[in-house]
Amino acid sequence: MNVTALPGFREAFPDALARRRHIFAAWREVAARYGFEEYDGPPLEPLELYTRKSGEEIVEQLYNFTDKGGREVTLRPEMTPTLARMVAQHAARLKKPIRWFSLPQLFRYERQQRGRLREHFQLNMDIIGEAGPLADAEVIGAALDIVRALGFGPRDVRARVSDRRVLTDALTGELGVEPGLVPAVLAALDKFERAPEATREALEKVLGKGKGAEAVLAFAARLEEPKHLLERPSAGPLRECLAHLGAMGLGEFVDVDFRIVRGLAYYTGIVFELFDAQRSLRAICGGGRYDDLLKQVGGELIEERDGPPRAEPVVAVFVATVTEEDRPAALALAHKLRDRGVRVEFALKKQALGKQLELASARGARAAVVLGPDERAAGQAVVRTLGTGAERRVSLAELEHDYAF
Amino acid sequence: MNVTALPGFREAFPDALARRRHIFAAWREVAARYGFEEYDGPPLEPLELYTRKSGEEIVEQLYNFTDKGGREVTLRPEMTPTLARMVAQHAARLKKPIRWFSLPQLFRYERQQRGRLREHFQLNMDIIGEAGPLADAEVIGAALDIVRALGFGPRDVRARVSDRRVLTDALTGELGVEPGLVPAVLAALDKFERAPEATREALEKVLGKGKGAEAVLAFAARLEEPKHLLERPSAGPLRECLAHLGAMGLGEFVDVDFRIVRGLAYYTGIVFELFDAQRSLRAICGGGRYDDLLKQVGGELIEERDGPPRAEPVVAVFVATVTEEDRPAALALAHKLRDRGVRVEFALKKQALGKQLELASARGARAAVVLGPDERAAGQAVVRTLGTGAERRVSLAELEHDYAF
Repeated sequence: MNVTALPGFREAFPDALARRRHIFAAWREVAARYGFEEYDGPPLEPLELYTRKSGEEIVEQLYNFTDKGGREVTLRPEMTPTLARMVAQHAARLKKPIRWFSLPQLFRYERQQRGRLREHFQLNMDIIGEAGPLADAEVIGAALDIVRALGFGPRDVRARVSDRRVLTDALTGELGVEPGLVPAVLAALDKFERAPEATREALEKVLGKGKGAEAVLAFAARLEEPKHLLERPSAGPLRECLAHLGAMGLGEFVDVDFRIVRGLAYYTGIVFELFDAQRSLRAICGGGRYDDLLKQVGGELIEERDGPPRAEPVVAVFVATVTEEDRPAALALAHKLRDRGVRVEFALKKQALGKQLELASARGARAAVVLGPDERAAGQAVVRTLGTGAERRVSLAELEHDYAF
Repeated sequence: MNVTALPGFREAFPDALARRRHIFAAWREVAARYGFEEYDGPPLEPLELYTRKSGEEIVEQLYNFTDKGGREVTLRPEMTPTLARMVAQHAARLKKPIRWFSLPQLFRYERQQRGRLREHFQLNMDIIGEAGPLADAEVIGAALDIVRALGFGPRDVRARVSDRRVLTDALTGELGVEPGLVPAVLAALDKFERAPEATREALEKVLGKGKGAEAVLAFAARLEEPKHLLERPSAGPLRECLAHLGAMGLGEFVDVDFRIVRGLAYYTGIVFELFDAQRSLRAICGGGRYDDLLKQVGGELIEERDGPPRAEPVVAVFVATVTEEDRPAALALAHKLRDRGVRVEFALKKQALGKQLELASARGARAAVVLGPDERAAGQAVVRTLGTGAERRVSLAELEHDYAF
């Protein structure tokens, strides 16, 4: 009698493992260039960590059991609650914004469909402690650079970007949806592209049959055409995020598409998904802003359990700006440095230069590259060695191509 | 109320993860130099995979449960049964000897002692399909090179090497132990260094109080002094293994010590453990030959489930010998190349040159370095480019230091 692997679980023979490691290497390499630090958590967690956030229904999809000490435990289905707990433990001492990533293996017990996996590896990248749209652009940019690192271009992969705040604004405005019903309506809209009939059914359940549901369905049919929504005042952060991605040189990968809603209720702002250009597969990856989640899951866990993690230099170069007008040039330079493999970070909101240099030091960066209006006019930047304070002017061309920090 | 991590499970903050990754990188780097390929298996496995080999008692120490499909499953406590199953699936097509390694996270539910972990990461290196003592020397050599890669020398770490065949020979010979009782006697001897009283108790249980047990205890007290055992004919393979380690340049790390028995019953030959030189910690790592295990666990699983894994070039240079007398020089050269970071393999038993070059091609090696008596006399070797068959003589000094293959 054979003891084969469990259904839905993979054995990785050396060839398959080499392919997996090639992808992991690209994930780690790009994450490092963006100044993200890797963390990991236990694959087995208390069941309560997930039911508290998602309710008891989630238990149906979990690999949960009672351990020999009588604890209700489960194989982790996602990483975010673990991340929230870890960050909360050291919240007071971690320098914000926190940029962390992880490559966990996750587990879901779904009724077996043919070939459906019950475990998979997932890249999780999170920026914590920064509300502005540049943080969204950073995460989308990193996802696109991973795609580029694996050899794909804008004809292969598209980033579809949206903002739930804009949809919420339109729904509660001219469409008259009550704010309390918005999450259920967004969940219904999430199905529209794949199964419009399912959206109709879900909407009629939430809003009743009639004008309200019909109006939202008509609205859904126009989501592919983004202009009327992108011009609303509530689309300001999304327009900013798009401008940042353009400045980074990644604009040709990006489409605005308000049909992207993301299934999970906890997203609160900009959301995105990466698709193959032919859309023959489901989304390759996706993400979004979830400002409330850390408060909700982790906020109670401020207790310090171990000593604080020591800060190690994870960033080599910090790009600083003097005025907000320097931002696009700074983003373009930062992205070119990252393409060279340099680990680069910058402030994600408007900050005085002193504050920016403080963060640069906290990250252990070797050098700060400072861009101001005068420098830009001269096609230059000031490179400041953070250990000594020594400064020199260097041309942007040299910085982009082969300057050794 | 806090949802903390489960007792015995670690959260890895970025600093801790950086240290873990530094160690993993050394493991992978050295394994690659020795021509090992990485594989992985599912962290969740059928319970039967372990009870079949180790009996029902092992269940006490497992994280086992019944999944929602009614399957008896467990988090993996060790990697060997998974390896045996994977190799058996493709046994007919994998080129022997198989050199595979893995870095699994393993799980044991042990009654919680303060600070005792319930999960850990373990490096598993296996050579399958080669019976000779050079295979043992390769695994011990790789373990020592990992220690070296992490910055330790022979004053920090010692490899203690032994052979269960020699102990078995002495026990069943002049000490008159019945062959069927040898595994239980070896298990009792395994405790001798840490707890001699426990050895006495266990021996008296197995052999009864009296002369037999007293004789084995007296024998145990002399195991530290290896000469009388090392000179026995049954110590031939161990002496060979030691000579190979010497030829590799690793002799100064190695002590013969017959107190090393290894707890697990399935070891059948040479066994080893690495210790810190002060012996203030328990063994850092250990291993040994277990010729019967694959037969026992995997032999029934020859069924082909997927297509065979494609062979990918995992080895850059294959060191071949013309006569057995060339072996020490070949081992010395191979080890110097590995110290340069080159991925090197060689035949683990006496083989005709043609057979060796065949294995070199099967591994996808770029070049074979051939050492014969004439070449050695001239301080040279023949470098054969395997794609073209082109050959040239190169001095050993150049090969060792900076020859580009």
